[in-house]
Amino acid sequence: MTGNETGSGHETKLAWVVGVGALHGTGAAVAQRFANEGLTAVVTGRSPQRLAEVVRAIEATGGAALAAPGDVTSERDLIDILAHIDNIGALEVGVYNAGSARWAPTLELDSASFEDAWRVCCLGGFIFGREVARSMLARGRGTILFTGATASLRGRPQFAAFAAAKAGLRMVSQSLAREFQPQGLHVAHVVIDGSIHGEKVLTRVPDLADRKGPDGMLQIEAIADAYWYLHQQHRSAWTHELDLRPFAESF
Amino acid sequence: MTGNETGSGHETKLAWVVGVGALHGTGAAVAQRFANEGLTAVVTGRSPQRLAEVVRAIEATGGAALAAPGDVTSERDLIDILAHIDNIGALEVGVYNAGSARWAPTLELDSASFEDAWRVCCLGGFIFGREVARSMLARGRGTILFTGATASLRGRPQFAAFAAAKAGLRMVSQSLAREFQPQGLHVAHVVIDGSIHGEKVLTRVPDLADRKGPDGMLQIEAIADAYWYLHQQHRSAWTHELDLRPFAESF
Amino acid sequence: MTGNETGSGHETKLAWVVGVGALHGTGAAVAQRFANEGLTAVVTGRSPQRLAEVVRAIEATGGAALAAPGDVTSERDLIDILAHIDNIGALEVGVYNAGSARWAPTLELDSASFEDAWRVCCLGGFIFGREVARSMLARGRGTILFTGATASLRGRPQFAAFAAAKAGLRMVSQSLAREFQPQGLHVAHVVIDGSIHGEKVLTRVPDLADRKGPDGMLQIEAIADAYWYLHQQHRSAWTHELDLRPFAESF
Amino acid sequence: MTGNETGSGHETKLAWVVGVGALHGTGAAVAQRFANEGLTAVVTGRSPQRLAEVVRAIEATGGAALAAPGDVTSERDLIDILAHIDNIGALEVGVYNAGSARWAPTLELDSASFEDAWRVCCLGGFIFGREVARSMLARGRGTILFTGATASLRGRPQFAAFAAAKAGLRMVSQSLAREFQPQGLHVAHVVIDGSIHGEKVLTRVPDLADRKGPDGMLQIEAIADAYWYLHQQHRSAWTHELDLRPFAESF
Repeated sequence: MTGNETGSGHETKLAWVVGVGALHGTGAAVAQRFANEGLTAVVTGRSPQRLAEVVRAIEATGGAALAAPGDVTSERDLIDILAHIDNIGALEVGVYNAGSARWAPTLELDSASFEDAWRVCCLGGFIFGREVARSMLARGRGTILFTGATASLRGRPQFAAFAAAKAGLRMVSQSLAREFQPQGLHVAHVVIDGSIHGEKVLTRVPDLADRKGPDGMLQIEAIADAYWYLHQQHRSAWTHELDLRPFAESF
Repeated sequence: MTGNETGSGHETKLAWVVGVGALHGTGAAVAQRFANEGLTAVVTGRSPQRLAEVVRAIEATGGAALAAPGDVTSERDLIDILAHIDNIGALEVGVYNAGSARWAPTLELDSASFEDAWRVCCLGGFIFGREVARSMLARGRGTILFTGATASLRGRPQFAAFAAAKAGLRMVSQSLAREFQPQGLHVAHVVIDGSIHGEKVLTRVPDLADRKGPDGMLQIEAIADAYWYLHQQHRSAWTHELDLRPFAESF
Repeated sequence: MTGNETGSGHETKLAWVVGVGALHGTGAAVAQRFANEGLTAVVTGRSPQRLAEVVRAIEATGGAALAAPGDVTSERDLIDILAHIDNIGALEVGVYNAGSARWAPTLELDSASFEDAWRVCCLGGFIFGREVARSMLARGRGTILFTGATASLRGRPQFAAFAAAKAGLRMVSQSLAREFQPQGLHVAHVVIDGSIHGEKVLTRVPDLADRKGPDGMLQIEAIADAYWYLHQQHRSAWTHELDLRPFAESF
Repeated sequence: MTGNETGSGHETKLAWVVGVGALHGTGAAVAQRFANEGLTAVVTGRSPQRLAEVVRAIEATGGAALAAPGDVTSERDLIDILAHIDNIGALEVGVYNAGSARWAPTLELDSASFEDAWRVCCLGGFIFGREVARSMLARGRGTILFTGATASLRGRPQFAAFAAAKAGLRMVSQSLAREFQPQGLHVAHVVIDGSIHGEKVLTRVPDLADRKGPDGMLQIEAIADAYWYLHQQHRSAWTHELDLRPFAESF
């Protein structure tokens, strides 16, 4: 791992964000936000280059960040990164943000794609949640956040793979919340219902922002606000699930 | 109405909280929180005496507040208070917090009680939401918040009256959100799933806090945090519904 | 009440259907179906003339039926009719089918209309369910069925009144199911998601059937099949809720 | 495949039930029920011996059945069996009944078990649904039924694997319904909420039936009734989801 770490290992508080890709993406914005608040952001994704950009951007704002490249579907990678984190400081927040919407007419949706969606959206989230919980339970404190989508709640034509994977992740989130909240870990699920104004979407559909109009797509900083809000909720009033959507989005 | 108003009529921003009773209650805490943030809190409930206490408490912290006594089930009262508010300044936030859980074996639940629950929890909320929206639409801006409960989502034995009333309010909230959000009004519904650490509950069940343990009941300030958070969300990422429950509460 | 009754009072099994209007309507079709199966159908609605037509139609097919005119929102009427039923035989099935979808822009929806929707869809259903349960609990047996709608599950723009009322009825249904099923009463809720091919809709929107295409609207006999199916389910596998929609309906 | 086939290939109507194990199990009961109604039941599961027993039992009642052993998680097996079925006659009904509840404290739940649950409950269901739909779309007719569970709707402590898998299957069911119903295929999901009075459960927990009391567990014939009912619904009033639970089960 590369990047600056703040403070002594004993006192450093970390936020581990998994599923960080584009510099202007949800994962990076969430990492930036936690860094703004004084935590050291550990960012994980497949591309070391992109992670390095994210780390540099966070450091440029005075925040602390570390790149921890890895494959979110690899149990080995997740466990190795977590071991490293546990050496550095106290993991306060874990964010599972991996996932990518795909769709295809069901008759053309091959099993490999169905499985890929599940590995990235659901299996990785389960392993991440389980291992992060294991680390946090020792201190009886911490927040685990999962990124959901409209498809987490309902299946649409052509969305069998993504909906099945995301609904699975939602159940992981519920199961962990019901099991670990009484032990002090806050587990929450954020349903993002709309298009995200980030690199991934804007690269694929360049005119979407225009078509949606001002604030018609979710600003990534606004999403990051929600993650921070969830983390700092008082334990007497924890949220398990909230939805986020642009004001003009029909639902 | 009585109490101090801040600034000139033209610039004053108001938060109207309906269903304010006990000084140490959710309604009062929400009003206090909005006053902390610089809005003038208008508090409505049946008891002028209790409202005066709430106003004094808010003023003691340097905030601005007004008592506007009235019956939340009276269309006349709500419209009159709103006319007064519109004269004072810009209504930025409306909070419908009225409601009281009651239960009885169904065979002993008389129709009058069933109707009372609906008048307080649902009909009042509809009138409030409609009139507040009417006022806010002129400026194309504002937040309308409804207080929900576990019973908003499911009917339990003995809870037919409360659940029917609260589920009705939730549908009012959804209908208004879908109708008015594209016009700039944020409408949200907060599902409070647990016992509130406020006067109402603690008076009725004095030993509940002990039985529930530390932070086993929702702190009213933590609830108020959620209302404030919802109000200041960026319009590109609005939440329509979130749940709040103590960390140890099973769900 | 008028009409033929079958068998001796002691052995007569009755199905009471409330919300019977048009001869070619859901209520009448449900009554006909239970009469086909050997029960005496008691039909309640506001128009004695229409009820008489329904009774004659059932009798013409060899079934037994009784007209019991009354206002479903009147506790007095419902209790009086039930007292009469209890004198005749054993009430095996109670169906609450009253309700009428209305919509209006929220700002134009007056409180009286909001209340009317609730009285017909929700309050009447509560009183009906409570009194029918009281009668059935003596024998520890019986089925109570409520007619729901798409609006029972979500609020749409302009549907605040209908959605609030129907969601309230759904909670009544859930509360009664959870309270009375362990005592032997089956309580179920049928979500009708689509346009019904009955007089009420076809009179208002004469070209709807053409626009929807073959079987694009719910056949009332098909709805009645579901009610019968629910009634005759084995108590080891009761359904509490099912949805019904035309094959081509999007959802 | 072995067993008697009824009629000429051209006219034979088949019901393919996947996830058939115990002779006294849900899969077998559903197959028996469709055979009772004149369809040829094709039963698939891993054990040729058990399938042979089921076929013999169905034949003993005068019904037609075929054993088609295979692994429900194998795309190859499912496609091969379906090719055989398509040679025999018209596939009218496909039932995906595979799945087995497992639970473990999350920290002890290894990834392989999490994946196994998904393969059996969800991936197999997707492949089955896709291939069965492909076969049925040629005739524009057919029913696809999925067996769900309480865990399909909510995640409980220790149930992360099962809930994630079953919720995924539910989304598959919804996606297929929304895609294929307008083309004439009925897709439905049955939520079984309670313990099934079948070999699998009774072998593991021999005293459960006593503890639950009379009809406290779902009779497999009662479950089979629901599957038959769904298949023969008129297309103007199709159900997508219904729940089944014993009368005394709390929910």
